[in-house]
Amino acid sequence: MPTDQPQPAFVLVRPQMGENIGAAARAMWNFGLDRMRLVAPRDGWPNEKASAMASGAGRLLDEAQLCDAFPDSVADCTYVLATTARPRGLTKPVLSPERAMRIAAEKIAAGEKVAVIFGPERAGLENEEIARANAIISVPVNPGFASLNLAQCVLLVAYEWMRQTGEVVHEEIATGRTGWAVAAEIDALADHYEETLDRAGFFFPETKADSMKVNLRNLWSRMALTQADVRMLHGILRQMVRWKQRGD
Amino acid sequence: MPTDQPQPAFVLVRPQMGENIGAAARAMWNFGLDRMRLVAPRDGWPNEKASAMASGAGRLLDEAQLCDAFPDSVADCTYVLATTARPRGLTKPVLSPERAMRIAAEKIAAGEKVAVIFGPERAGLENEEIARANAIISVPVNPGFASLNLAQCVLLVAYEWMRQTGEVVHEEIATGRTGWAVAAEIDALADHYEETLDRAGFFFPETKADSMKVNLRNLWSRMALTQADVRMLHGILRQMVRWKQRGD
Repeated sequence: MPTDQPQPAFVLVRPQMGENIGAAARAMWNFGLDRMRLVAPRDGWPNEKASAMASGAGRLLDEAQLCDAFPDSVADCTYVLATTARPRGLTKPVLSPERAMRIAAEKIAAGEKVAVIFGPERAGLENEEIARANAIISVPVNPGFASLNLAQCVLLVAYEWMRQTGEVVHEEIATGRTGWAVAAEIDALADHYEETLDRAGFFFPETKADSMKVNLRNLWSRMALTQADVRMLHGILRQMVRWKQRGD
Repeated sequence: MPTDQPQPAFVLVRPQMGENIGAAARAMWNFGLDRMRLVAPRDGWPNEKASAMASGAGRLLDEAQLCDAFPDSVADCTYVLATTARPRGLTKPVLSPERAMRIAAEKIAAGEKVAVIFGPERAGLENEEIARANAIISVPVNPGFASLNLAQCVLLVAYEWMRQTGEVVHEEIATGRTGWAVAAEIDALADHYEETLDRAGFFFPETKADSMKVNLRNLWSRMALTQADVRMLHGILRQMVRWKQRGD
């Protein structure tokens, strides 16, 4: 069963290798997309190599909408985006993947149907296919080396769809099963070290002792310690004292 | 020769299949990155399968820095990012690829050396390797289907590096070899159609003629026509008139 998440259809036009169809399905499903359409796959359909490659994303292949001719594959869509390296002399908006998926998300939210079309592995889309699209998506690659394969192109567009519509957490700190230490715990740690190191004769010469103590206290505060870290640092010091006392 | 563009090094730690090393090189070079480091590749180095897969990006393999042990591979770096699906209980910042490459770009611009490390295909990085990193990059994939392979992970991080540092044009209109029509040209086109269609008896009934003329004029203005489009639309109408006059 397809997800009920509104989303663009990804249309593979005359794909050649079954493996690439399977890899494209995986790339889509990595970012939650599951509406694939296929126009005249070269080696027929269904395709064993596609299924073998798709593994966990095989459902997308089973549910893929198969069309004989390209116009049928986008007949129900109000906005069609063609992925192609070069605009090839047609007057047409050329969008970055980011901008294209932002527009697609807005149109889909407004109830429109959007398709993204991908050409066959070697030749790419025909000019007459591109002419039926509303805009072109061009991935901004190294002009001296543009070698994205079909599944990679699908991956990058699907990634941008997720970026534009998903709730991406840009930065968080995983702390495992422990919480951050509070200031009182950091103070107690600093006191423990200061007192023990004082007895050990660490703060020497005496003229520098005060600034050494400030620097050490500053280090603990700067470190963003968890409660587990604080326990470990106490333990280290206690063990050093025990070792000294054992005298071996 | 490496490019002189300041950039992060991409470190593949114990990569297994030569093909994946080659595919990673291609993925990097697609986005202008060419500093690869390799830690103990399983099948030795150099690797024929890696070279065969890298094709146009083979230079990256020739220039790759080979290390026996992981710590050597990042010894000169002030900031190390580890790509991994899950933080696995270590207290560590977890960044989106976007945020990670923004931070990397800022640090590199300030003269720091940054590495991004990628684990072996199946097992991923060891916890003790992740512990040496300053932060984790986690690609926000479908939680029900996270199946990015090594080269795809490299591709997405390299793409984000380009997005954060390149000059991405988000929207432009390619017009081929023609320019946009100016208002006077659109007016002349509208006049041509209005006058000819008036003679042809198109604006009927007379009570609706004025609003039909306004709607037609509005259509031309809305279409964002090039000068070549305008010439073609004039030509269509002239030819229809000629055809009528021929009377065949």
